[in-house]
Amino acid sequence: MDLSDLSTPALILDRRILARNIEAMSARAQALGVGLRPHLKTAKSVDVARLALAGNFGGITVSTLHEAAYFLENGIADMTYAVAMAPGKLDAAAALMDKGADLKIITDNPDAARAIAGHGGAFHVLIEIDTGDGRGGVQPQGPELLDLARIIEAAPAASLCGVLTHAGHSYGCRDAESMAAVAEEERAGAVAAADRLHAEGLPCAEVSVGSTPTARFARDLTGVTETRPGVYMFSDLFQAGIGTCGIDDIALSVLSSVIGHRTADNALVLDAGALALSKDRSTEKLAHDCGFGLVCDSGTGRPMGDLKVASVHQEHGMVRSAAPLPFAALPIGAKVRVLPNHACMTAAAYDAYHVIDGGTEVIARWPRCNGW
Amino acid sequence: MDLSDLSTPALILDRRILARNIEAMSARAQALGVGLRPHLKTAKSVDVARLALAGNFGGITVSTLHEAAYFLENGIADMTYAVAMAPGKLDAAAALMDKGADLKIITDNPDAARAIAGHGGAFHVLIEIDTGDGRGGVQPQGPELLDLARIIEAAPAASLCGVLTHAGHSYGCRDAESMAAVAEEERAGAVAAADRLHAEGLPCAEVSVGSTPTARFARDLTGVTETRPGVYMFSDLFQAGIGTCGIDDIALSVLSSVIGHRTADNALVLDAGALALSKDRSTEKLAHDCGFGLVCDSGTGRPMGDLKVASVHQEHGMVRSAAPLPFAALPIGAKVRVLPNHACMTAAAYDAYHVIDGGTEVIARWPRCNGW
Repeated sequence: MDLSDLSTPALILDRRILARNIEAMSARAQALGVGLRPHLKTAKSVDVARLALAGNFGGITVSTLHEAAYFLENGIADMTYAVAMAPGKLDAAAALMDKGADLKIITDNPDAARAIAGHGGAFHVLIEIDTGDGRGGVQPQGPELLDLARIIEAAPAASLCGVLTHAGHSYGCRDAESMAAVAEEERAGAVAAADRLHAEGLPCAEVSVGSTPTARFARDLTGVTETRPGVYMFSDLFQAGIGTCGIDDIALSVLSSVIGHRTADNALVLDAGALALSKDRSTEKLAHDCGFGLVCDSGTGRPMGDLKVASVHQEHGMVRSAAPLPFAALPIGAKVRVLPNHACMTAAAYDAYHVIDGGTEVIARWPRCNGW
Repeated sequence: MDLSDLSTPALILDRRILARNIEAMSARAQALGVGLRPHLKTAKSVDVARLALAGNFGGITVSTLHEAAYFLENGIADMTYAVAMAPGKLDAAAALMDKGADLKIITDNPDAARAIAGHGGAFHVLIEIDTGDGRGGVQPQGPELLDLARIIEAAPAASLCGVLTHAGHSYGCRDAESMAAVAEEERAGAVAAADRLHAEGLPCAEVSVGSTPTARFARDLTGVTETRPGVYMFSDLFQAGIGTCGIDDIALSVLSSVIGHRTADNALVLDAGALALSKDRSTEKLAHDCGFGLVCDSGTGRPMGDLKVASVHQEHGMVRSAAPLPFAALPIGAKVRVLPNHACMTAAAYDAYHVIDGGTEVIARWPRCNGW
């Protein structure tokens, strides 16, 4: 089967680029002397997970318990659920452990920690640390860290296994130098928290950090045990815009058909709109605003000048350009590939990847695990 | 089962509000003397479709051929696929007709029309008219209308059955008066196109118009045969913001758990983020910017002051307010319901609705038909 045989819109994953991105990040982790625990929130695919785990220690990160159940069913047991644990989800987490999951959960709140401790499950708990992102986590130097650690350690069955942080503010950086600085903040905060636990005689085997920008540009991860980047596997226009990859490193695209010509408006209409591309506008504030996605040749996967999806309706994408559009080269029914602003959001609209290997032959269909 | 038993995030549909919205729109169409062909692109559910069709003629509108196949399998045959037909989808459309679908397709392009005519399938074709939206369609008074009609009429098997328009620019209106004016543009343009076809002796049995704002506020639809609104069933914060409904008319919400307290930042963290709510920001330019959704009491479904999801990460929603947040009333594990900016986008992240009937008891689970 060839790309031209697929019904549109369809999600395309280029295994050649994926493999290159995965190898580069595995090499980074190895050079930095830390374990790589890839975050599967972007890919949500066991086929991608197997590639990402090659040569690494075998642990993964997940963003939902639904992902955890899916990966466990597919033979991956060592996983960290890197979203603050809700008390209402403890039974589901315990059920996964009964089925063989080596599941780590995280907390940053004393009420949640008491619920974890009081549940009776043998949970492995990481304390979430805020190293500047401001989303979740306690301060490395604040009193909450030790309070939480003592609640967990006093539990009859749950155990403290370390600290975890995500320097999401690295997404605000625009160059390697500032990403390296955030990576050092992330490392220093996590290690400081671990040192405080050790100084009090509390256990802290794991010191877990990570985001794609900080993993890519960290200079030293002394004291860290593992990193958890995710989007590096596919990359996207936002990552290219902030400089963690090039446009040629984006492995994910949406195959779409031209369904309209508005020559008087210098606009083309695609059958990939808000649902097929997502409404993510994360490139809006970057130097190069890609609208809702950059339009590429369906054969080469390379951008066609500055053609971008400038606006979207539910099932329509309006392509515009500063120059006259190449209507003759893109007749009704022609196919293009649209690079996504944000791979995690775009991929979530599809139940599977159509996999290519650098060309246009579709070599596999890899299912995704969506929802909750 | 009660709302409190559901794992979060979960999509909640209030059947009581849904039924009221559906009855009101059916009464509108009846009062205007036109058929109601509800657009199922928002609901993508046969359970919702059955309610929406009660008392109406039985036809529906769909936005994908995947929806068409799903509704056909569930016993609904009369349907209009209201996105410009791609030549590559003609075989799939013909296969649906072979299975019993009374499928209408649309075109606004001579190459597409020639592909439809040349395919050999007995397609029922509507010509798409642009009545001001600028997305798809030919001008009511331009030469393309008659060219397209003649291409279809000369086909060995396909037949021309009318004109169709969608005045999507009604979404730019902010009051009933301007929506009524756009409704008249929509009506006048479609009827003018139909009159031109009739004057040339060409068939035009259907004159199809519609959007929720124009259906809600049209004063007269003389010459129109049917209207195709969709989002009126669920409504959302954008529709409330432009005045087609009130906040109390929003039937859809996302049940979510509090998973973090950031008291120093006056922020609460929910387990409903970018995937659970979508990244739609359509209320951004309205008088009341609702962020990524308005936070409501999980029992009553009513807004909790001005609490809104101010920012999102993939699985985290950050709730903020101008006033001090009610942390004590929303402890870790507490549940809230978040009203969506755009129902079509938010619902698309879920494979089913958990249905309530004004209270908190979950009375049914209604599956959705996502993807392409």
